[in-house]
Amino acid sequence: MDKSNEMTHKVAILGASGYTGAELIRLIDGHSNFDISVLAGERKAGQDIATVFPHLRHLELPIIQQIDEIDFSTIDLCFCALPHKTSQKVVTNLPHNLKIIDLSADFRLRDASEYQKWYGIEHHSQDLQKEAIYGLTEFYRNEIMSARLVAGTGCNAAVGQYILRPLVDQSVIDLSDIILDLKCGVSGAGRTLSTQLLHAELSEGAHAYAVGGNHRHLGEFDQELSQVAGQSIRVQLTTHLIPMNRGILATVYVIGDPKAIHKTLSCAYEQEHFIEILPLGETPSTHHVRGSNFVHIGVSADRISNKTIIVAVLDNLIKGSSGQALQNANLMFGEVETEGLMMSPLYP
Amino acid sequence: MDKSNEMTHKVAILGASGYTGAELIRLIDGHSNFDISVLAGERKAGQDIATVFPHLRHLELPIIQQIDEIDFSTIDLCFCALPHKTSQKVVTNLPHNLKIIDLSADFRLRDASEYQKWYGIEHHSQDLQKEAIYGLTEFYRNEIMSARLVAGTGCNAAVGQYILRPLVDQSVIDLSDIILDLKCGVSGAGRTLSTQLLHAELSEGAHAYAVGGNHRHLGEFDQELSQVAGQSIRVQLTTHLIPMNRGILATVYVIGDPKAIHKTLSCAYEQEHFIEILPLGETPSTHHVRGSNFVHIGVSADRISNKTIIVAVLDNLIKGSSGQALQNANLMFGEVETEGLMMSPLYP
Amino acid sequence: MDKSNEMTHKVAILGASGYTGAELIRLIDGHSNFDISVLAGERKAGQDIATVFPHLRHLELPIIQQIDEIDFSTIDLCFCALPHKTSQKVVTNLPHNLKIIDLSADFRLRDASEYQKWYGIEHHSQDLQKEAIYGLTEFYRNEIMSARLVAGTGCNAAVGQYILRPLVDQSVIDLSDIILDLKCGVSGAGRTLSTQLLHAELSEGAHAYAVGGNHRHLGEFDQELSQVAGQSIRVQLTTHLIPMNRGILATVYVIGDPKAIHKTLSCAYEQEHFIEILPLGETPSTHHVRGSNFVHIGVSADRISNKTIIVAVLDNLIKGSSGQALQNANLMFGEVETEGLMMSPLYP
Amino acid sequence: MDKSNEMTHKVAILGASGYTGAELIRLIDGHSNFDISVLAGERKAGQDIATVFPHLRHLELPIIQQIDEIDFSTIDLCFCALPHKTSQKVVTNLPHNLKIIDLSADFRLRDASEYQKWYGIEHHSQDLQKEAIYGLTEFYRNEIMSARLVAGTGCNAAVGQYILRPLVDQSVIDLSDIILDLKCGVSGAGRTLSTQLLHAELSEGAHAYAVGGNHRHLGEFDQELSQVAGQSIRVQLTTHLIPMNRGILATVYVIGDPKAIHKTLSCAYEQEHFIEILPLGETPSTHHVRGSNFVHIGVSADRISNKTIIVAVLDNLIKGSSGQALQNANLMFGEVETEGLMMSPLYP
Repeated sequence: MDKSNEMTHKVAILGASGYTGAELIRLIDGHSNFDISVLAGERKAGQDIATVFPHLRHLELPIIQQIDEIDFSTIDLCFCALPHKTSQKVVTNLPHNLKIIDLSADFRLRDASEYQKWYGIEHHSQDLQKEAIYGLTEFYRNEIMSARLVAGTGCNAAVGQYILRPLVDQSVIDLSDIILDLKCGVSGAGRTLSTQLLHAELSEGAHAYAVGGNHRHLGEFDQELSQVAGQSIRVQLTTHLIPMNRGILATVYVIGDPKAIHKTLSCAYEQEHFIEILPLGETPSTHHVRGSNFVHIGVSADRISNKTIIVAVLDNLIKGSSGQALQNANLMFGEVETEGLMMSPLYP
Repeated sequence: MDKSNEMTHKVAILGASGYTGAELIRLIDGHSNFDISVLAGERKAGQDIATVFPHLRHLELPIIQQIDEIDFSTIDLCFCALPHKTSQKVVTNLPHNLKIIDLSADFRLRDASEYQKWYGIEHHSQDLQKEAIYGLTEFYRNEIMSARLVAGTGCNAAVGQYILRPLVDQSVIDLSDIILDLKCGVSGAGRTLSTQLLHAELSEGAHAYAVGGNHRHLGEFDQELSQVAGQSIRVQLTTHLIPMNRGILATVYVIGDPKAIHKTLSCAYEQEHFIEILPLGETPSTHHVRGSNFVHIGVSADRISNKTIIVAVLDNLIKGSSGQALQNANLMFGEVETEGLMMSPLYP
Repeated sequence: MDKSNEMTHKVAILGASGYTGAELIRLIDGHSNFDISVLAGERKAGQDIATVFPHLRHLELPIIQQIDEIDFSTIDLCFCALPHKTSQKVVTNLPHNLKIIDLSADFRLRDASEYQKWYGIEHHSQDLQKEAIYGLTEFYRNEIMSARLVAGTGCNAAVGQYILRPLVDQSVIDLSDIILDLKCGVSGAGRTLSTQLLHAELSEGAHAYAVGGNHRHLGEFDQELSQVAGQSIRVQLTTHLIPMNRGILATVYVIGDPKAIHKTLSCAYEQEHFIEILPLGETPSTHHVRGSNFVHIGVSADRISNKTIIVAVLDNLIKGSSGQALQNANLMFGEVETEGLMMSPLYP
Repeated sequence: MDKSNEMTHKVAILGASGYTGAELIRLIDGHSNFDISVLAGERKAGQDIATVFPHLRHLELPIIQQIDEIDFSTIDLCFCALPHKTSQKVVTNLPHNLKIIDLSADFRLRDASEYQKWYGIEHHSQDLQKEAIYGLTEFYRNEIMSARLVAGTGCNAAVGQYILRPLVDQSVIDLSDIILDLKCGVSGAGRTLSTQLLHAELSEGAHAYAVGGNHRHLGEFDQELSQVAGQSIRVQLTTHLIPMNRGILATVYVIGDPKAIHKTLSCAYEQEHFIEILPLGETPSTHHVRGSNFVHIGVSADRISNKTIIVAVLDNLIKGSSGQALQNANLMFGEVETEGLMMSPLYP
């Protein structure tokens, strides 16, 4: 796409060799008014994109360079798709006139002690941490529009909050008894070398991980849901790795009237482009959102009175990270919020 | 294996062309004292096993015949791996001196009205229904030893009960708040022609089904857990289809002390060959039981006090059906209970 | 996308409930100047798209209707994504001023006796059969521009011809010794109810099918390659079903100089947007074209002198059928050829 | 299984933490007269098997120890499942009265210069290299019976030779034109940390590797087929990685009469327990041998006269490595050759 016009915003992507980086490139290529000027990474510096991601070989893109060699003078927006801990160091050193969307965990938690609790290290940019806007687009739209630094949410935290925020806000569920059971695609773990991420170890089976309150995304649930409720909320979260590459399916168990819950969600998202509430009693599939920025949510009554099951799905690499990032970028630069994000899911 | 000795029991398998039928053949072939004399099925009658199941082509087996042409006079044991509704008709007409293990749903529920409620038709063999012993081996061992008709359990019902029966029996959990979230392999749906079971529809994604109290295996949970508790118990059950062929992973959410729960399960299964309780805090994977008769159970404390997550796995076609059936057959014929069932899982 | 302008061409899709139909909808939705006015199908008539294909539920689309109830008076272009045999009947009855792209096998072969040989029935629209243009875009561009009826190619025939046509045309390979070994994704078989397409039968394994000269796409190879060569050519083709939903990987064994072959392919496709020739010695992956209209081709020298292996990949549902169809539609209506087709592959 | 009898042979497994090591444990556990006395490995030394391979947690096995701490005085047989290069060092230092089955590549090639050519390093045990018997059981039975050191074959080399050896030996095919196109399960690459073996990189797609005469198993083909033919033979071999964990499907293209080929294979394997020749025109599936020691071979005539396609399948971890090793061990110790190896495949 020829984007050489005055409306075009120049973009740098730091961490271009991971899955969220690749997805940013793919999505931004389809956007009319963002143009990729810089790709950066540490280990892959000096390589072209056809070597790192052959599926992007048809694109004309800059060679991947070292982060500390970037000339930011012409850059309007910087996406950081670096690992947490690394990200805070890099972001701290970026020019202060630059708009930044960080996809790591480093700026999601506003409280330094919470960060230390969940990530095991002290936060070194506590000022930026306080300044950062939590990037759950539909709930922080105004703040994001005027933000300089937006923190992309955890993918599991995103799907859970899409279900729970309106229900907590409207007090239609019992706040003391919330269980989230998540089935997660393996790309959520990134392009990390780990025995447990090998095909031979993962395909044809399923297992739970981070059981019992250990999942780091719980920090986001604690912070955000407590703020919505105006009181401390603690949810239960169990994540499972299943043999699919993309997608999260969240099955959420709450106490509350299914019709009221369905109505609350329907009203909350009535104007949203990307969030679809299914008719009461229907349930979604990750197949139906894969490769897209959509969220599908289904509400079902249990046979036991006043118990409700809510199932939601999204693509962790799009609505759960890179698509969310681009949606936020649209807000930050006055673009149409859906620009570059309306592609349909890939099925089958 | 040459089995032509006096100790050998002659076996007929009805419904040999389904997955549980194939699995019965495979397992019985490895058993010293059972010998397959008859294979029967409707649609595949007249075919040899190499045509129906090429993976069994190395075995010398009888041609598949029509059920009504079987000479039962030399048969000691009949496995029925037929669909429910069909099974009750066939079983009713079998000779009364024959021992029978039925793998369908037809004799799991002792109450005719419960059967009608869950399966939508009237039961036509209510006497047999009352006579049948529920085939969850570890809990009905004595009854099975002397039974004529044993009803194999639902695979989902089996995994759930392995977790819950000792906990309900020992009253270490809150009986009013039990949630089972199951991730199920697709072979549980059988070799059925259905669009939603196609590879292109199932692989690379996940979805929930029978949400909200509609899953038929709930009839078994209601019957069995209520009996153990001496009071009516209703659990929540949500099943999910994920892209794996074999295995069920059950994540169960209960209220109760994790250590007490772990101890209760450890004690309950201390003498059992096939049920392994992992150290507290560890979680199992379906990978680790695939192709075997084992059940692995892990108990984890939640960060919220007095909430416990229990994860259990089994192979739905073995411990969840055909392996369970053979284990029960061993009991019914005075064989060593583990005979033919000690093979290790296939990994990776 | 709002498409209510004078430039918009009105489109009907017949056979909207199959995979190629769904893919047409997805692709056309992203096209600036085609607008879907009619969706039709037999079994699903009366249903909305959210029921038939929930992944398209965010689109505003007409209800699926019966084919014989369509008002074609405002339609500019009709895509037929019906099964072969059905398609020829439907196409014969369409208004003669309508442009048609047929995705079935019915108009690929120009010779009625060849059609009968490969498809086992007499062709009932032999005039149309002769009129139809073979839709392999890069080689029939001029004819397609002025065509009324374009016949989409077989997906396997497409990938093989992308490798072989320039090599046959330039006589850089031995025409008497050509072997194509194809690894095919399961969506190529469509949304058909067949035991052998079940997840449990296909995942975790691989098998060959239509071995030894029985694959129907050989009719296309025979017709097209013989025409290019000016002499009768017969290739060997073996297709394999492997556990992936989308994609074909073709490994082609030829006798000829690898450098000359690489140069011939590089020259042939130098100006093409969708066909990428990798550097000599590199090989492509279906992962790198999935969800896109691209073809990647790699040429490798064998250790045996003058033997060359060529590997090519494409997405069978896009470049192998629906994307090809849209590319041809662009030509037929004077649109930019790449419009609506430049999306990058979905990876991972 | 209680194996404490005088007939029991004491076994050590070196390299117990890889896939072939795990498979040896699984298979030997089911064998009446071999007993595992020692498990050894480097990185996992000090760990129990439940930690390294939870699917084997039900077995009573020794703790994994360092290789140099093993007391070999009571060991009868040592399986080496170590990486090549490492293996030759370890095997050289083993006691000379010990029988050894090496599963690495280190002793497959009898010619030191060939080893250096294919593996890139000088061989440091050239005496042992010459002494070692090539472990393709059906063709080296007598030599294996009296061997001290047996070299397990490459899994790809095994499947290819099962097809080609009888055909080369009987001169029913053209020796100058042999193409092997292999579709390989990912466990063949072992439990190696490599980006390209991650689930997200491998599942849902396919690619070729080691194209053009680079695959190391070609050294075995060259050595063995040339010896059978009494003249130098060079085959073409292309291997592909597809998303399945176990299994190799080999499609072999030869010039020769299909009936003669089918007859030659049928005669050659008539007495073999593990090798099944399908009726002419039928083709096998990896599904039908997975988890077993069987090989299925199908022969099909091409439509082109005198061209034949032969398809063979085996489980790379069993007949391609650990099952082959146990079969050879049976020969070396005078056990029944099929002991411990007659389990049926796991399907689905």
